[in-house]
Amino acid sequence: MRMFDLIEKKKNGKELTETEIKEMIHLYVDGEIPDYQMAAWLMAVYFKGMSDQELGNMTLAMAHSGDRIDLSHINGIKVDKHSTGGVGDKTTLAIGPIVAACGEKVAKMSGRGLGHTGGTIDKLESIQGFQTEIPKERFFQIVNDIGLSVVGQSANLAPADKKLYALRDVTDTVDSIPLIAASVMSKKLAAGSDKILLDVTCGSGAFMKRKEDALTLAKKMVAIGEHAKKTTVALITNMDMPLGENIGNSLEVMEVIELLQGKRKGELLEICIALAANMLYLAKIEKDKNITIEACEKMARDAVENGSALKKLSAMVKAQQGDVSLIEHPENFPKAAYYYDIVAQHSGYVFHMDAQQFGIASMILGAGRETKESNIDFAAGIALKKKTGDNVQVGDVLARVYTEKYDTVKEAEEIIRNAYCIKKEKPKPEKLIIAKVTKDEVIWY
Amino acid sequence: MRMFDLIEKKKNGKELTETEIKEMIHLYVDGEIPDYQMAAWLMAVYFKGMSDQELGNMTLAMAHSGDRIDLSHINGIKVDKHSTGGVGDKTTLAIGPIVAACGEKVAKMSGRGLGHTGGTIDKLESIQGFQTEIPKERFFQIVNDIGLSVVGQSANLAPADKKLYALRDVTDTVDSIPLIAASVMSKKLAAGSDKILLDVTCGSGAFMKRKEDALTLAKKMVAIGEHAKKTTVALITNMDMPLGENIGNSLEVMEVIELLQGKRKGELLEICIALAANMLYLAKIEKDKNITIEACEKMARDAVENGSALKKLSAMVKAQQGDVSLIEHPENFPKAAYYYDIVAQHSGYVFHMDAQQFGIASMILGAGRETKESNIDFAAGIALKKKTGDNVQVGDVLARVYTEKYDTVKEAEEIIRNAYCIKKEKPKPEKLIIAKVTKDEVIWY
Repeated sequence: MRMFDLIEKKKNGKELTETEIKEMIHLYVDGEIPDYQMAAWLMAVYFKGMSDQELGNMTLAMAHSGDRIDLSHINGIKVDKHSTGGVGDKTTLAIGPIVAACGEKVAKMSGRGLGHTGGTIDKLESIQGFQTEIPKERFFQIVNDIGLSVVGQSANLAPADKKLYALRDVTDTVDSIPLIAASVMSKKLAAGSDKILLDVTCGSGAFMKRKEDALTLAKKMVAIGEHAKKTTVALITNMDMPLGENIGNSLEVMEVIELLQGKRKGELLEICIALAANMLYLAKIEKDKNITIEACEKMARDAVENGSALKKLSAMVKAQQGDVSLIEHPENFPKAAYYYDIVAQHSGYVFHMDAQQFGIASMILGAGRETKESNIDFAAGIALKKKTGDNVQVGDVLARVYTEKYDTVKEAEEIIRNAYCIKKEKPKPEKLIIAKVTKDEVIWY
Repeated sequence: MRMFDLIEKKKNGKELTETEIKEMIHLYVDGEIPDYQMAAWLMAVYFKGMSDQELGNMTLAMAHSGDRIDLSHINGIKVDKHSTGGVGDKTTLAIGPIVAACGEKVAKMSGRGLGHTGGTIDKLESIQGFQTEIPKERFFQIVNDIGLSVVGQSANLAPADKKLYALRDVTDTVDSIPLIAASVMSKKLAAGSDKILLDVTCGSGAFMKRKEDALTLAKKMVAIGEHAKKTTVALITNMDMPLGENIGNSLEVMEVIELLQGKRKGELLEICIALAANMLYLAKIEKDKNITIEACEKMARDAVENGSALKKLSAMVKAQQGDVSLIEHPENFPKAAYYYDIVAQHSGYVFHMDAQQFGIASMILGAGRETKESNIDFAAGIALKKKTGDNVQVGDVLARVYTEKYDTVKEAEEIIRNAYCIKKEKPKPEKLIIAKVTKDEVIWY
């Protein structure tokens, strides 16, 4: 096999065979295919795409390039969930406890974040003492005992993805839908769960701005999961404004605690219930053919209302050595040195929010990492007091920003002001869940 | 300037500015842009193309990346000629002497060949003693004295092209028409002639198999030349069979000597007259506004018929220390150890010749280089006794092959037999000159 021939095939829009793809990934990880040839191949993929078959084979080869987590030590069906990300996206923190409270197992590996806020792991580490690097056996044991554990990704999980992503990042081949799908799914497949629920975010705060692209990505990821013989379902969800009220690390944990305390309603709760219900359905259908998604939704809602989900969160924090008192008293999280209220200068309705700009502002305030080496300020971020559809009067607080670095406030304020579009007219409410994609169908909501 | 942004621009089909292109070429030659980024950019060019403006700027930047030959030491107008190559293409060896005999100056740098036969430099070196590496001053002096010199390309001519070509060669981005055009023209511009005539070959023995592609390439190269303020004209010529009778190094020199002796008529002579006439026209129009292409053709034909072109060839060989007795007695060229006649097994007409296959056979016989390190066997090659349109009877000799390595004959024979397509019907004769491309128009013949 010569890499030259594989570039030529892809350039001409042809499909690589399973053997070719496997060997290509293998030789690339081993350093026997140089970056310049892989870069040419990736750019050809950008223009010519990949078939489902080809993409399934590539993703499996990437998943098999490093450690594969064997979750068979954990009893029952393990359901994983992945979100393609967005501003204020803290759903994992809420859904894990809900699903565990309903009797299913969540053994989740998460990453750190680069960009507007930390990843799930960073958010959890804002709980003092919380350990995300724990031995595999302990991880399995926690899940067996309480149904839930979230740990950092093993360093050698899908190294092919790491190497390919680093190359895509400098050769402008990140925004290729098949390559995005392979990157996400290679890690999901290596992480070993039995079922996979994908949250494909769509809108101004997501990587996929357009519904067509979100749908294509969802279909490709579902096809990859099914190719690997794992039932995979995707929900396409609205990320046209930041999710929930808070953006930041401990700010988001506090919001999730309040949600699980039953104190927060609205779009965040509804998205969490929908995602949790779909995860539950994937697990429960294996044991009960007659289960319905409606029944799963009710279970999820009950777990929030009766406090059992909050108890699961406490149990996990305790098991992973975090300060469990913070779950009972979120007001005790360390506070940012400064806060500042951004006040409305016009009256009307919040007509639109450019979600990505809130992410950028929150990074400037200290909540995210600009480079891999940046430190996160756990208490920094934004609390949104007004969101799309809300009525605003001059003088109302639009948002409160938190930071350790007071000199960042001016810049953040300007970005946030520009990101709020206030008009006289009230916008039409948008659907939270846009569509559901399974291997057999697309259901529009 | 970040290379990432230039990749993105090209990926989205946008035009790079003059500054961007210049800096990109400069930084790439300096090793500050890594190969993997350039590979991604080149693949994006393959899919998105380049505007004439962009391509002109890139080619100039490549031409300026190393030595530039200053031909102002040579009096008069210097006309260069470049062929995009083909099997049996020995036109430079004949045209140079014809143009010089008609009073114009040819100061030509040529390359060595990789592939079916040697390049012009290899062919000239099959004349014992012929020096192709001579000091610049001597090169200028020879052209001033006799009107003609052909030397090897300076090692530092357009190093950007060398580096880019090496990368294209391993990333399957050779077959991009704008990149081909930039590669050829960067060397032509650096070589310093005032006028450029391009012979864009088209057909089974050429790199451009289709007329549309040959036309696109011709237009792009003419646009580049004109962008650099040099009058540039392209002839699109037929390379659907090998050019002339002989393929090989000394075999081709012998054929050219016989042609200049007036002993050979037919398609090779006609193509040489057409090319020489166009070179003459480019030079003479500067001094005589009323000159016609027909008058130039007559001059060229006369130079062959009255022996003055042959005298110019002798003068150049003498000036560059070659054995001038070979020009008078080409039968004295060293002979190959073996020759073998391939005899027709069917009667009919030669309906088609797959020219490229003859090139491959001649390389196998020893006339070309498989790798840069291969040695050329100057006497090896093929003499075609039957060509497209010729009547063939069983037992007639189709071709005679020459080699030092008798064990290559069987393989060459099989390739050559398959490359001859013999049918009952006589093929329609094809035009030798297909079109002429100037900055203002395309004239179809």
